Formats: sequence, C-alpha cells, structure tokens
Amino acid sequence: MNHPLFPVFHPESIAIIGASEVPGKAAERRTRSLIRGGYNGDIFLINPKRDILFERKAYPSVLDVGKKVDLAMIVVAPRFVPQAVAESVKMGAKGIVIITAGLGETGEDGKKIEAEVLKIADEGGAKIIGPNCSGLFSASTSMNLLGIPPIKKGPLAIIAQSGNIIDSLTHYAEMRGMGLSTIISVGNAIGVKFHEYIEYLSQDDDTKVIMMYMEGIKEGSRLVQVARRVSTKKPIIILKVGRSKAGMRAAASHTGSLAADDAIVNAAFKQAGIIRVFNVDEMFDVAMCFANLPLPKGKNVAIISEGGGDNSVAADNAEVYGLEVPVLPSSAQEKIRPFLLAGMPAGNPIDYGGTAEENPDMINKIAAVLMEEPVVDSIYITGFFGGFKEIIAPHVGELEEKTSQALVDLVKQHQKPLVVHTSFANEPFRSMKILHENGIFVTPSSERAAQCLSYLSHFSVNRDKLKNASLVKTNGVNVDMTREILRKVKEAGRANLLETEARELLALYGIKLPRAFLATTKDEAVKAAKEIGSPIAMKIVSPEIIHKSDAGGIMLNLKEEREIQEAFEKIMKNAEKVTASSKIMGVLIAPMAPRGQECIIGMVRNPQFGPVIMFGLGGIFVEVLKDVSFRMIPLTDLDVDTMIKEIKGYPLLAGIRGEKQKDIAVLKDIITRISQMAVDHPEIREVDLNPIIAHEKGASVVDARILIG
Amino acid sequence: MNHPLFPVFHPESIAIIGASEVPGKAAERRTRSLIRGGYNGDIFLINPKRDILFERKAYPSVLDVGKKVDLAMIVVAPRFVPQAVAESVKMGAKGIVIITAGLGETGEDGKKIEAEVLKIADEGGAKIIGPNCSGLFSASTSMNLLGIPPIKKGPLAIIAQSGNIIDSLTHYAEMRGMGLSTIISVGNAIGVKFHEYIEYLSQDDDTKVIMMYMEGIKEGSRLVQVARRVSTKKPIIILKVGRSKAGMRAAASHTGSLAADDAIVNAAFKQAGIIRVFNVDEMFDVAMCFANLPLPKGKNVAIISEGGGDNSVAADNAEVYGLEVPVLPSSAQEKIRPFLLAGMPAGNPIDYGGTAEENPDMINKIAAVLMEEPVVDSIYITGFFGGFKEIIAPHVGELEEKTSQALVDLVKQHQKPLVVHTSFANEPFRSMKILHENGIFVTPSSERAAQCLSYLSHFSVNRDKLKNASLVKTNGVNVDMTREILRKVKEAGRANLLETEARELLALYGIKLPRAFLATTKDEAVKAAKEIGSPIAMKIVSPEIIHKSDAGGIMLNLKEEREIQEAFEKIMKNAEKVTASSKIMGVLIAPMAPRGQECIIGMVRNPQFGPVIMFGLGGIFVEVLKDVSFRMIPLTDLDVDTMIKEIKGYPLLAGIRGEKQKDIAVLKDIITRISQMAVDHPEIREVDLNPIIAHEKGASVVDARILIG
Repeated sequence: MNHPLFPVFHPESIAIIGASEVPGKAAERRTRSLIRGGYNGDIFLINPKRDILFERKAYPSVLDVGKKVDLAMIVVAPRFVPQAVAESVKMGAKGIVIITAGLGETGEDGKKIEAEVLKIADEGGAKIIGPNCSGLFSASTSMNLLGIPPIKKGPLAIIAQSGNIIDSLTHYAEMRGMGLSTIISVGNAIGVKFHEYIEYLSQDDDTKVIMMYMEGIKEGSRLVQVARRVSTKKPIIILKVGRSKAGMRAAASHTGSLAADDAIVNAAFKQAGIIRVFNVDEMFDVAMCFANLPLPKGKNVAIISEGGGDNSVAADNAEVYGLEVPVLPSSAQEKIRPFLLAGMPAGNPIDYGGTAEENPDMINKIAAVLMEEPVVDSIYITGFFGGFKEIIAPHVGELEEKTSQALVDLVKQHQKPLVVHTSFANEPFRSMKILHENGIFVTPSSERAAQCLSYLSHFSVNRDKLKNASLVKTNGVNVDMTREILRKVKEAGRANLLETEARELLALYGIKLPRAFLATTKDEAVKAAKEIGSPIAMKIVSPEIIHKSDAGGIMLNLKEEREIQEAFEKIMKNAEKVTASSKIMGVLIAPMAPRGQECIIGMVRNPQFGPVIMFGLGGIFVEVLKDVSFRMIPLTDLDVDTMIKEIKGYPLLAGIRGEKQKDIAVLKDIITRISQMAVDHPEIREVDLNPIIAHEKGASVVDARILIG
Repeated sequence: MNHPLFPVFHPESIAIIGASEVPGKAAERRTRSLIRGGYNGDIFLINPKRDILFERKAYPSVLDVGKKVDLAMIVVAPRFVPQAVAESVKMGAKGIVIITAGLGETGEDGKKIEAEVLKIADEGGAKIIGPNCSGLFSASTSMNLLGIPPIKKGPLAIIAQSGNIIDSLTHYAEMRGMGLSTIISVGNAIGVKFHEYIEYLSQDDDTKVIMMYMEGIKEGSRLVQVARRVSTKKPIIILKVGRSKAGMRAAASHTGSLAADDAIVNAAFKQAGIIRVFNVDEMFDVAMCFANLPLPKGKNVAIISEGGGDNSVAADNAEVYGLEVPVLPSSAQEKIRPFLLAGMPAGNPIDYGGTAEENPDMINKIAAVLMEEPVVDSIYITGFFGGFKEIIAPHVGELEEKTSQALVDLVKQHQKPLVVHTSFANEPFRSMKILHENGIFVTPSSERAAQCLSYLSHFSVNRDKLKNASLVKTNGVNVDMTREILRKVKEAGRANLLETEARELLALYGIKLPRAFLATTKDEAVKAAKEIGSPIAMKIVSPEIIHKSDAGGIMLNLKEEREIQEAFEKIMKNAEKVTASSKIMGVLIAPMAPRGQECIIGMVRNPQFGPVIMFGLGGIFVEVLKDVSFRMIPLTDLDVDTMIKEIKGYPLLAGIRGEKQKDIAVLKDIITRISQMAVDHPEIREVDLNPIIAHEKGASVVDARILIG
C-alpha cells in the first residue's frame, strides 16, 4: 500500500515524549500497552527527569535517541507540545500522535497552539493525529498506543472522536470474541481528517468493516466523496451524535465540534452509502454482522419460529425496518409443509410449533428449503432456539447442537445470511456457542435481528446502485459571462443580484425561463405585455428593494391595458417611497405561470459540507412540514433521482387524483445546472428558485434570488 | 375483591378434564405443574381410561368427583369440548379454561363448537378462558396451569394471546430475578375478553404492572374505556402486533384474529393511556422499571458519565424519546463543579471524566445534588460504571460497590428514578448485583435506558392528564327528530342521506350551517341567491346521484342572475341524463364559503373499536400525507384537544405566516356533536363533513355526507 498514512500505522520506531511510570496515568498506561502489546520496532521513551523507565533507558529529549523516529506520541503539557512536535519532525517522524488535551477544545489559546503545531508538522511532512485523542492501535504491527489491555486481531476498524466509545467498542469486541484491525482516536482532528482515515482503511486488507464515532464533521464534502467510493467496497458504519439540542451541547463541550444540521448529515450519509447507527451496542452488532455474514442479494426475508407470537413480532420488525416478508411460492410451501403440524402456516412467516420443540432438526430442514428458494434473500429464526432443552426436555439439548451446526453449514454452503433471535442468546449453551463462533448473529432482541438484516440488505442493494451512479454533467453553460456579471455585481458593492441579473445567470446556465421584459415606462410595460400575452405579473427591479412584496412592488394577474398602466404607476410610486428614483431600474413584465405544482430548488453553502442543494414542494410543504431533501454537491444521477423521490409530497409530482405526472426531467435538469453553477462560482453563496411551477411539460421559474459574497 | 373473575383465580378446587401422564404432552405438563406448584385446594384428575394418575385417583368423568368443582381445565379433542363444558357447569364451575386448540382459529366448524360452548357456559354462569390457550397462573393461590416450571411470585401480571410470548416473558423474569402475580393465556378469547382481565387485575393488590400481548382486539371500545380508568392507577403495557402486512398475516393465522388498522390501534392506546411497546424484551424492561422505580414528576432528565461520547449518545437518545435535558441552574452547577476536573461540563450532560474513574464516589455525590435539584425529574448514568475495576484498576471495584449502595439509598430517600447504562450491565460484578437487586434498572443499551425513562415520564405526566379528563357533553341536540328522519330514509330504502337531510341532522345536533335553500325552479334559485347574497354554490339533490361532481351536478362561484339561471338548467339537464326526473329533488343553493383553512371531520364504525372520529386538514393533507388523527367515541375533553393538536398541519390552524388563529373551539364543538350523534344513533354508519372551512370566527360546513345501515 502506498497511502500517506501507511507509515503512521506501520512505523519501524516509536518515541513516547512524556513517557511515565506513575501507575494509571495516561502516559504510563500507553507506554505499558505499547511495550507489552508485542510491538516489534524500536521504542524510545523520552522524559528529561528520568534515566530509566520500564527497565529501559530513557532519553532527555527525542533529539538524543540517535536513530530515525517514524512515529512520535506526545503526552506533555499543552505549552510543551509545539517543541515536541518540532523535535519529532527533526527526527524524521512521519506521524505524530498528540494525546495532550486542553487545546482547541478549551478556547482560543489552545487553538493558537494547534495552529502552530499544524504549521510545523505540515512543513516537516508529518501527519498530526489528535490532539486530545487517546491513541492508535494497529493489529498488523501489534502497536497499542491506547493504554488498554491487549486487543484480539480481527476484521473491524474503529475511528472515533471519543476515548470512551473506543473503550466500549473494545469491551463489546472482547465479550463477543471479535477482533480488531485498527483503532484510531481522532480527537480534535486538526491534522488528519475522517475521510483520510477512511481512505487508508479502504486500502487496508486486514479491515473488512469501518466503524466511526463522530461528534463534529470536518471537510464533510471530502468525506462524502471518499465514502461514496469506499462504500462500494466496504461498509462504513457511523454513529454521529448531535441529533438533539442537548446532544449537540454535549458534543460541543467535548471536542469543541461545531454542530451540523442533522437533516444535512442524514442526507450526506445517505448519499455516500454510509450506514448511520445511533447507539454503540447497535454499531457493534451491525459491524459484527457485516464482518461475519454473507450479504443478502435483496430485501426479502423468511421468518421461522415455533410460535405465532414471535413470528408476528418478527414480521412487524422486518417491515418496520424496510425488509419485505414475501409470501413463499406454493412450490416452496409444499416442500416445507411436511415439517409442520397440519394447518400450520408455511407461507412466511413459517410456524413449526409443536414439531421442532421435540426435534429441532425441523429447523435446519426448513432452512435448507429457504436457502434454495430464490425469492428468499435472508433467513430470520425467532423464538426459543437454544432453550428447548430447558423448556421441553434435557435430551433436546444435543439435538439443538446438531441443528446449530447444520445451520452454520447451510450459511457457508449457500452464502445467504441467517440471524437468530432467542431469549437464550446469551446463555452458556453449546448450541449458542456453535452459532456465535461461526459468525451467525444471535441476539436476545428480535428488533435488533431485524435491524441488522435490514442494514445488510440495504447496504447490498445500495452498493449496486452506487456502483452504477455517475456524476452528472451539464453542457451549454457559459462560465465566463456568468463570472463577468458576478464581478460587476460585486464591484457595485451588492450582495443581492437583481432579478434581471439572476435571470441572466440562469439563462447562461441553460435554464429556460418564461420571456420577460424590463419596462421603464408605462408604454414599455403595455408593449411588453402585448409581446408576452396576458395575464402578466409585474415586479419592481431595484437593488434597494429585496422584499419586493412588502414594498408593494408586485402585482399579479393583470390583463387590460389600463390595469397594466395603473399597476406600473402604483409600483413605481410605492418604490419611490422606499428608495431614490435613481435606484429603480424599472418593472419586470413577466407572464403569469400556468397552473402546476409549486416547487423550490435552492443552494446554500454549509460550513461542514460546502455547497448543498435543496429540493421541495412549495408553501406549506416547506414551511409547515419541512418536507425537503438535501444533497451535497457534486451530485450523481442517483442523487438527483432519489432527492426528488424521497420527499413525502412526491405523489403530487408523480400524479394523483387523475392529474398527469409533472415534468420531473426538467426539475432534474434545473437541479443539475444549479449544482454546476455552485461548483463553477464559489462566490455564489445562495440560490433560491422559489417558486418553480412544474407543468406536465416544462417548468416556470417564477422567482429567482441569487446572493454572492 | 368482588370481581366476577375472582373465583377463576382463587378456586377451592380444580378439575383437569383430559389429565394425562404421557411425558411432554400438554395435559401432562399442566397436570404436573399444578400438582408440583404448591396449589392447596382439591385437584380432580379426569380421564375415563385411567384409574390412577400421578399416584392419585382418576375419575372417569367430572360428574363423578362428588364435590363442587370451582375451576375446570379442559384438554380434550375439539369434539368432546362441549360435553366437558356442560359437565363442568353442572358441577358448579365458575371458570372453565379450555386448552384445546383447533377450534375457531381453524375455520367454521371450530367456530360452531365455540358458539355452542359459549352458550352452555353463559347459561351456567361460568366464565370461559380460551380456547386455544395455554392456561393460567395465579401467585396468591400457587395455581400453575401453564405446564411450565415454578414461577417466582412478584408484582408483574401477564395477559397474552400467545403461549410463546408467555414463555419468553417468564424466561426474562427468571433471568432478571423478577416475580409474577398472574399469567393469563387468553387464546381465542371467546368468553372473557382482554378488558375484563384488565379490570380484574386493576383490583388485584398483588399486581403492580399489567403486561399484555395482543394479536387481535375484541371489544376495543370497552378496552379503551376500562384501560382509560385503570391507567390512572396502574400502568398497562401492551405489545400489539400487526403493524405490518406480514405481521397481520402471521397474527391472523395464529389465533384467527382480524387485523385492525394500526393507526386506529395507536390512537385507541394513546387515548386510554396504554403504553405501547413493540418487542418482548422491551416490554419486560419497561414493566420491570414500572415495578421497581419511583415515577418521575416530569420529563426532565439529568445525564452523567465519565465521557463526552456516552453523554452525547445519551442526550440524543433522551431527546429522541421525548425527554428534556435541561441546562441545570447555575446554583446546581456550582454544587457539582467541585466533583469535576476544571473546565469539564457541569450543565447537563455532566462529564466527571478523569475523577470518578479512580474514585466513583464522585458519581453518588453528583447524583445527590441532582436528587435535591427540583428541575431534575430523573437521573441517567451512562458509561462504564461497574467496569472501572477492569479498565482502571482492581481496587476500584470495592469503591464501585459502595457507590452502587449509595445510589440505591438515594433513590429510596428521594423517590426519583435512576437508570444506569453500562456495557458491564450483565457482568457478574457485585456493584451491578447491588443495583439489580434493589430495583435500579441497569442495561447494556443506552437507547433502552432512555426509552424506559421516557415511558415512566410519559406515563406519569399523562396519568395526571387522564385523571383530570372528563367525557365531553353536548346540549341542544334533538335525538327524536333525528331518529324520525333516519327512519324515513330507511323506509325509503336509502343508505345515503340527501344533502338536505344531512344538513337537517347537523342542525338538529346544534351544528351551525351556512343558510341554504332547495330550489326546484330557476326562479326559486335566483330568489334564494338574492336571499343569501352572491357568490353562491349550486348542487344537485337526488337520492340517485351520490357523486355529484362526476354527474355534473355542482357549479360554483355564481354571481349574476343569468349565470344562476343557466347553471340551474345545466345541472338539471345533467341530472336527467343519469336519473329520472321524479328522482330529482332540486338544486341546493348555498353561499360560497369565505376563505379559511380546509378541514375534515369524519365518523366511521370500526369492527374492533366501534365508532371512531377522525380529524384532519383537507386535500393533500389527507390524500397524500395521511395527516389525520383518530379517537374512539366517547371522547373526553383531553381527546378532543389532543386530536386537533397532534396533526402535523396544526400550525395552519394555530396561525403561521402572520395569519390569525382559526376558530379551533368551533371545530372542537363539531367533533363533540358528531360523536354524540354516533352514540345516539347506532344506525348512522358514516359521517363525512368534507370540507369544513375554518375561519377566524366560526366554520362553514361546505359538504356533508351521512350514511346509514
């Protein structure tokens, strides 16, 4: 691997600056875990007050070690950090892990130190991990800089912005016998960012699943781009906090992370194929399933149990989590029926009540049929499996063990995932152990079983879509002329484009607009109206009048010549009440849009994610129901398609109550062109096309507002 | 207690009809569990083929036992059930538990037997439990008719429509050391219904919490009424399946239960103060919390942890589950700060990172401050508590145990609930055991901790509201004249009331309507329009024309005399195309409603719940967004209030974008009156007031449709 972070995780020598022997201290725990963890390279312990530490020579300064230092871990007081970083760079360090807390997260003084440190490292070509982080673990080099007990090696990687969460996840891993490939505590992430770690792990062959815990997002736009690519290969599971006000508060006080609008986060993750989870135990369960189970081809699940109650609960869970529980074809039902009591349902869910309790062999026989059945993508066993020996009779225990082994073999043979919900999941029975050890997901929560299958299925289906998605392209845009207009607006000291200018920009980006004319006299207004055809809308054009309606600057639905003349006079008079005549450009004469579905397309720049495009239906859909969708720019064809379809009001575009479908293609085209405009012109801060009236054929942009700066 | 079900749970003698000794058979398991369970009364084993069973005398028939039989349990083939019931009744049985399956749930033959059995029992004054049930357990009489191992006695009661679920719940109880007061397997519930069991358990002093698993709902209206009363005393927690199509399918095939619309179920449960859960483990956790913890006074929770990560996750969970995480007053923060490292957040969530890890004493000191703080209603400890001895150092273990005991004492002293999330929850540590055994809820799931606190808080707040709620009353309704109109419509063989008749009914129920006149000639139409004032709406009135609009029977916004005359002719002409002149009553002349917010109020009769009232905003809110609320009739003032406020479009009624609030009082009044109409006239099948235009003052019922039959 040639990734710039490779040396950080595979150093040939490590210096611990601020090494200590005082039991329980951060430096002591990390020094100990590195030495005892089996790391093979050179270890240099730096502490000016000690000659010997951990029965090894200690050096007064990293400058004294006399050999190249690949990685430095710094655990000294904040004010000594810059010097430690400078010296590490001098010794050739490619990575510098700063454990020290009390920097950027506590205020301006800390931020200054961070900036200084970053400058030194950048100039020296070293990567900064942290500060305020708890260290790294790399299984391939047995490098444990986390100060925690030895960690089993395995396929899961963790990137986390909280030491606690790392401790929890390693505890879950230990309890479930799972191993880890890499652990990264990012801390304040002033140097290496989330997306760079993801990029590195995507190339790391030891890592099958990437788990992340995030408080704040830095360089969200890059995160989306990298994750979108990686998600076609490996699952990225993220626990992002700050869904609530109190959660944002807690995250902010923890790593000084800025809050991001959660709706934007959700959109970004969706777009990037990231699996968003909400709890640590959930994250671990999901990661374990991805690491151990084959991926299902689709969302169809077959449910089997010895009881109607558990089957009903499981079926509800499955559908609530977006899985399908299809009725099995009669051919499959026929094959299953011999294993059931007469009259018991074989259609899915399948109820083997009264048979398998005494011989659980029935379970693997039914599972074998389901493994062969093309309509079934995954299998969900629910009920008491493992506990029949307690509930029914002791001799059933041995039969249950055989069934467990048979289920394991079936999964291997057919490469279809199988999960087991049973209230006996955590009992120390051999039947359970066989499943656990062979990677079958066994859980005491029926809901969690459904949830995990759902994540597997959605990832699988979405992965194929992501693979086929490509960035949208536009043609027929005029970047130079647009830039020229923007330059002039800027020169004039304005942040708001006039509607006439905004219309020009849209036209330069290939967005069709209804014909409109700027009238400076009554006669011009009447002439324009004749040209356009009535009824018309009239709107004041003035850089000083932004809220046109409030200023009496809009009149609608005008037909007669006399009406138009009067309206012109009235609008001009109203305008003169709020600004000087010289600041009034005239009145825009535009046709009234024919009826159709009101929509909004907008673009804003988000501090975390950069340019974001918004789509929604107009009016109450936005204002009362917040029924809008977002996507980070640049967009793929998949993004454009799904952002329109995911709004709740979509049926109004697709056509209901006998109405024909609206021209969704033209809406997609406008979204694409506005996104291109945002990419081409970073000086455009905001675009608001509101409303756009979508017709059966075409769409009318009725009002356009563009802000720069 | 004087409840009619008391004898069923406290019988002095029990006969088992169909007793058996064949190991593992349903009859054998139940005979054994009764004999070994410690039941003190007489036990009569009935089996015509055996003289001795379980070393006791067996009787050929229940008629032979020579003593009064209080309770009979029947485990014979379906065709023998009626005779067994008849004989039990003859022997004085007050309760008959029918284990036998293969009756109503399998088809018409079984339903016939059920009807026969029910008749015999009703005439004999006996209560039927089941059939297709798995038995009963009553702790106070040590009566175990479930065929499962001995059950610890305690405060939880279970009513369930699935034997599996009972087995799961008793397994959870065993694992968590909790006890049960009563277990009821309802089976097909042909005799005693859910609400009767609830009624009984509400009076049972041994029962603190009622848990129910339901597949189908029978007599839902009575369930709501009983539960609404009981919920002011004891929590009722229900797991109702059938949220999804597959879940309905599974439930239907299990107990032959009809599916109920899940939106209606949710509304009914909400109205009755029922706590709805979705999984068995969740139900058990929630029940355990209710049984063991004091109720919080409100929704404010304080969160404490040794890490920002866990705090952020917990805060998100709390708010997602409807709890508040208030910033603590500075007085409380001052008291907490000495226990934290400098600069750590004390505002809530509280982060004691770096202190308590080495001395968890800090945790109970902070908890003590929170217990005294009036703004805090409950406490949520999240992180590693219990595991510090593993993560930090072994000697911390003893300190953790002391902290556990201190926390237990605090809860007892202050009567504020406290829950603990820790990944060490299920480890066999003494610190955990002290919490578990003293009823503190300890869970490895942060989400579940929040969920349980949320259920406690919502129950507590809602209980007070339920206590103060009273059934709404109407005055000024004319039941007799309404009945007379309905009688005439029925006599005429019609199911649809004419709009004129529907208007009459509404008027008789005190609902104000815009003035309107039935015109039979052009001149009458013009005269009516003058009387009303233009613009007017004109609508055909004919029993044969139900879809007036489709038949060209509606014209709107008419002003001029000529327009009105032409419209009258056109409407009549259109009507004559689809029906005979003799079937045309004329044209209704009504004013056009002034602008306002479109609403719908409807009433339908639900097979499970009886009359149900619906409220929503019109048009797309109903058709696209399904944004409607339901309540079962009769209504309380609380129901009327919440059903309006809970719709997503409520801001449109409350007033947004500078619009004034609409007349919500008049909408409430109409809801109340329509509900009264549904109670007074069971022959009214459906009412549809659509649209009603709500104005700032008053509301216009624009169209009214009433169906009978």
